[in-house]
Amino acid sequence: MAAQTDPTGPGQLDDTTTLDGLRAALDGRWQATRDELRAALNRRDLLPDPSLDLSASRAKILAEMTELAAADFAAAGFRADHGGTGDVGTAITGIEMLGYADLSLMVKSGVQWGLFGGAIENLGTERHHRRYVADIINLDLLGSFGMTETGHGSNVQALETTATYDPATQEFVIASTTPLARKDYIGGAAEHATVSAVFAQLITAGPGEEPRDHGVHCFFVPLRDADGNDLPGVTTSDCGYKGGLRGVDNGRIVFDEARIPAENLLNRYADVAADGTYSSPIEGDNRRFFTMLGTLIRGRVSVGATAGAAARKALTLAVRYALVRRQFDAPDGAQEITIMDYRAHQRKLLPLLAKSYALAFAQNELTAELHDVQSQEPDGVEPHRQRLLESWAAGLKSYGSAHASHTINVCREACGGAGYMAENQLSILRGDIDVFTTFEGDNTVLTQLVGKEMLGMYSDEMRGLSTVGWVRLVAGLVGDVVAEKTAVRQVVQTLLDSSDEDPDKSDLTDRATQVRLLRNREDHLQRTCAQRLRRAADADDPFAVFNDAQDHLLAAATAGIERQVLESFIQAIDECDSKSAAEVLGTVCDLFVYSALEADLSWFLMHRHVSVERAKAIRRGVNQLCADLRPQARTLVEAFGIPEELLVAPMLEQG
Amino acid sequence: MAAQTDPTGPGQLDDTTTLDGLRAALDGRWQATRDELRAALNRRDLLPDPSLDLSASRAKILAEMTELAAADFAAAGFRADHGGTGDVGTAITGIEMLGYADLSLMVKSGVQWGLFGGAIENLGTERHHRRYVADIINLDLLGSFGMTETGHGSNVQALETTATYDPATQEFVIASTTPLARKDYIGGAAEHATVSAVFAQLITAGPGEEPRDHGVHCFFVPLRDADGNDLPGVTTSDCGYKGGLRGVDNGRIVFDEARIPAENLLNRYADVAADGTYSSPIEGDNRRFFTMLGTLIRGRVSVGATAGAAARKALTLAVRYALVRRQFDAPDGAQEITIMDYRAHQRKLLPLLAKSYALAFAQNELTAELHDVQSQEPDGVEPHRQRLLESWAAGLKSYGSAHASHTINVCREACGGAGYMAENQLSILRGDIDVFTTFEGDNTVLTQLVGKEMLGMYSDEMRGLSTVGWVRLVAGLVGDVVAEKTAVRQVVQTLLDSSDEDPDKSDLTDRATQVRLLRNREDHLQRTCAQRLRRAADADDPFAVFNDAQDHLLAAATAGIERQVLESFIQAIDECDSKSAAEVLGTVCDLFVYSALEADLSWFLMHRHVSVERAKAIRRGVNQLCADLRPQARTLVEAFGIPEELLVAPMLEQG
Repeated sequence: MAAQTDPTGPGQLDDTTTLDGLRAALDGRWQATRDELRAALNRRDLLPDPSLDLSASRAKILAEMTELAAADFAAAGFRADHGGTGDVGTAITGIEMLGYADLSLMVKSGVQWGLFGGAIENLGTERHHRRYVADIINLDLLGSFGMTETGHGSNVQALETTATYDPATQEFVIASTTPLARKDYIGGAAEHATVSAVFAQLITAGPGEEPRDHGVHCFFVPLRDADGNDLPGVTTSDCGYKGGLRGVDNGRIVFDEARIPAENLLNRYADVAADGTYSSPIEGDNRRFFTMLGTLIRGRVSVGATAGAAARKALTLAVRYALVRRQFDAPDGAQEITIMDYRAHQRKLLPLLAKSYALAFAQNELTAELHDVQSQEPDGVEPHRQRLLESWAAGLKSYGSAHASHTINVCREACGGAGYMAENQLSILRGDIDVFTTFEGDNTVLTQLVGKEMLGMYSDEMRGLSTVGWVRLVAGLVGDVVAEKTAVRQVVQTLLDSSDEDPDKSDLTDRATQVRLLRNREDHLQRTCAQRLRRAADADDPFAVFNDAQDHLLAAATAGIERQVLESFIQAIDECDSKSAAEVLGTVCDLFVYSALEADLSWFLMHRHVSVERAKAIRRGVNQLCADLRPQARTLVEAFGIPEELLVAPMLEQG
Repeated sequence: MAAQTDPTGPGQLDDTTTLDGLRAALDGRWQATRDELRAALNRRDLLPDPSLDLSASRAKILAEMTELAAADFAAAGFRADHGGTGDVGTAITGIEMLGYADLSLMVKSGVQWGLFGGAIENLGTERHHRRYVADIINLDLLGSFGMTETGHGSNVQALETTATYDPATQEFVIASTTPLARKDYIGGAAEHATVSAVFAQLITAGPGEEPRDHGVHCFFVPLRDADGNDLPGVTTSDCGYKGGLRGVDNGRIVFDEARIPAENLLNRYADVAADGTYSSPIEGDNRRFFTMLGTLIRGRVSVGATAGAAARKALTLAVRYALVRRQFDAPDGAQEITIMDYRAHQRKLLPLLAKSYALAFAQNELTAELHDVQSQEPDGVEPHRQRLLESWAAGLKSYGSAHASHTINVCREACGGAGYMAENQLSILRGDIDVFTTFEGDNTVLTQLVGKEMLGMYSDEMRGLSTVGWVRLVAGLVGDVVAEKTAVRQVVQTLLDSSDEDPDKSDLTDRATQVRLLRNREDHLQRTCAQRLRRAADADDPFAVFNDAQDHLLAAATAGIERQVLESFIQAIDECDSKSAAEVLGTVCDLFVYSALEADLSWFLMHRHVSVERAKAIRRGVNQLCADLRPQARTLVEAFGIPEELLVAPMLEQG
């Protein structure tokens, strides 16, 4: 558990070897991209300006995006044969780095290039790519992502906007069929977007058929003319002020029989012939819909990644402040004590710092996997791998954004009144990050999705099932042990093979013991949850059985996510080239594990996975590890490598 | 555990008897004040307008305060012989009710009438009362509360502003002696305040003496002339944008030898003669300082009370939304399910609702005690009672504002994207409440204060001791059991006398068992904390001993606060006139207790205060109680009686 002794003063960073090693480990595979953006973003004019009103804030962000576009920031996100450079990892890493400057810039860029651009790229076909991709990259075409409606955000299969094919004119007629069918919170819809990728129920009839709803599809729908006026059948409005993200022009769209040419159907996964005949290479509305959604995963990955960046920035500010701020308890009448020296303060910040490290490694792995999967030939991806990727993206987005929201809040409070002043950035960050737990999937819904996938063994047939259908499926699975779903990675297998089997007897600082504790919790929760759900097989009200186990399912999912995060951390330590950095990472990993165990200690005790004595050792261990890492606090945040000009905060000048 | 069946639909409230009974219980002793303000504040123009810039927001709040002043809102806060009507309970209740409208209005009113007015009222003497109180009430004199400095917020005894007496001119010279001595975050200092109650080290010398620092005293210091220009020696500036509270003009003040007449010393507790001789009826700088601070307790009580109001408003909005919002899981193709029916959603909101009830009762008791204490002849208060009052105020402010901050955050997330829109109020509330955990005492510092007072047995001599001094004092206390510090109230004593002694064997729904569990935790934590601190008696580094026990001390304090909150709840049930309301309150109290036990379950398990079986029963109990209270959710929030016009939120119109 011993930490390196070293840079202790607020300004001193003597041990550059360790620092470099940590940064290399954190930067991961796209270190070059990170370094480029560190240089490009090192400008304090990129920070949010709270004195600007809505319109000026939005204009500032758009101007910054225009600069990014001029520097070819967005090309990486599109395939070479569409006009991009085809480097998914660079695209995600770039979006993530924007989070160090201004979350509005990240979100609006993410909407334009990730969500809207991603819909065209992944759901469109050659005719769309040829016409739009270059303009999307260079911002000649500003778009929006028209999925969420006032009435439906989580249950997007139930969207109420319709796109009805009219064979007479070979057009689709887009309609908001109810007040709740209004598109809502759509980034870009208030002001800048001239078009939208609109998700709507596709209704058509082949010759002699009754019109049928084929489920949700995506359409390229023009919203505004060149002067910014709404087009016929389109009424946009402004969501106005929000809890943050002032630079993003969220708006609403109501469609009253807006007509678009048939070719505006993004038709990679389905098409409608001139006569109205519907065709698709994918059978089943559910399977088709989830295949389409699966291609749009990049947005969710970007949100998780950026949440991580925001948390790291907040921690950097709060740790720097804690190292210069002094209050109370001057020994021998000398200077007061830096607040970083109080145990309560260490306990506030350092476990969150450790978790931020863990998440950074997990997120890097996710980005790399997304890159590898999406760099393959389209449609060449093995379905199980795609399912695991989607589940992992959902899990990390949920776990990571919850962490970010909590961490930024703690950091704000840890900086007292100064933390509340906009000039010190934390309160702006707090307002901006807030919705990260909601957009790209509500965290509770996403965590539940992860749980459902785990218990449903990622079976293809469960997709799109109602909860009751899913419960019946799980209830019907044989055996009472949920099978291992992901291959155990080599470094973890080696660990497990080399150590004692009984996690309550072996040394808690032993990495294999730590893994085993988290694995056993996950297995236990999944198995017992499955047992409970099995009762639904012959229950009168299967939904009630599900609902009764909902908290259990969420806990099982979170346990699985946390175990995977730990394994990413272990992998990163294994791959770390610097001996001194690896040593520090080991201590940070210990703190991550001890804190995770402490946060769920009642579970481990109730299910006798740890003894009372061990539980007490875990609490003491958190304290000891905080003390051990205290001298490294400065190095640990500097390793994030956040551009210095983006860390401007008058509170850090404590005289 | 059975709850009443009743109003289930979002719009139905059939059981007005229960509703009235609950409201009467929640309203407490100042129900008439609440009803008056319900009528007066039922105006949606009082809600914050996020489209206003800083200056317009501040002007709006000042105009609203002017209206309040015209309606004689503030007179209750001042004694009749000073020109007020002398009703402390009404004053606090009034401030709290403003929180339903706009927290900026509450804070700026609190600064003017509570903090600044309170300093004049409580630290001044007849010459100040006569000249200023009427003008403070009617807003002809706008003031500020100049305590916090850039360098010192928690450790106010170490303030660096000085007030040096100059016998030649019979003036005090006010100086910011270092950059960190700048007054910071001062409400009113940016724009509206023309004067400030400035806290500064009083330095004077009697004839033939060396100048001596007599500790922090309060001075009436003019800041601006009639045109709003800074007076000589005064430089004000603007803190600009914050995380919220846009209607409050927080600013900074630097003093460069500003001169004020000697009579501007608020001289109730100390005076300086014309020749510079210092005198005080209270011996000892520490005792005097803490006596002065003790008279200013009303601000802290108001902040806790208002935090409670803000949490109740957020819960009302989120529960109403959960009752109309539907998503997923339509049984038999019917309407989707209201999100209030999901266990995960119930678990998010209902335990917080139960805790809000508990806090409302505790806060009412605190307000009443403050009223009774401050309605006595000044200086006639029994010191031990005053100490308990101060400690209770610190504890409830900390516990209550942490609850409010967390609750509003959960409510925002529980309303998804809609919750993030300013028009639905929650995100504004979130930004505004954020600093409630910081101002009027940082929560960690306050909780520690409560712990120190408990372990120091509220002894007078411990006040103002350094941590090391305090540790030595505690270490020297005899016996290893911390004595009972507060008299057990009758209703609790009766409960305890009438039930089984072993809390692990008796029924967990038994109120006495619940009390005993919380009391035993508190006693255990205090005793063991005292034992650890006793090691400091002969330690080389007593601060290290303290720091090593800091988390333990904080836990002990929180346990004590939570136990007292429960006992307030029990008292309120006992005093509830309505049988049906009392029955519902009983279930709500159960949920409060079960949730509190669940939140700290690892402690109860580790220290064998509950068995594993009982721990599992507690988890199941939370779920069951949530389900039991689900039909009452609407009634429970309506009982808060928040003016309907202040609950405007478009998200509640779900078609």
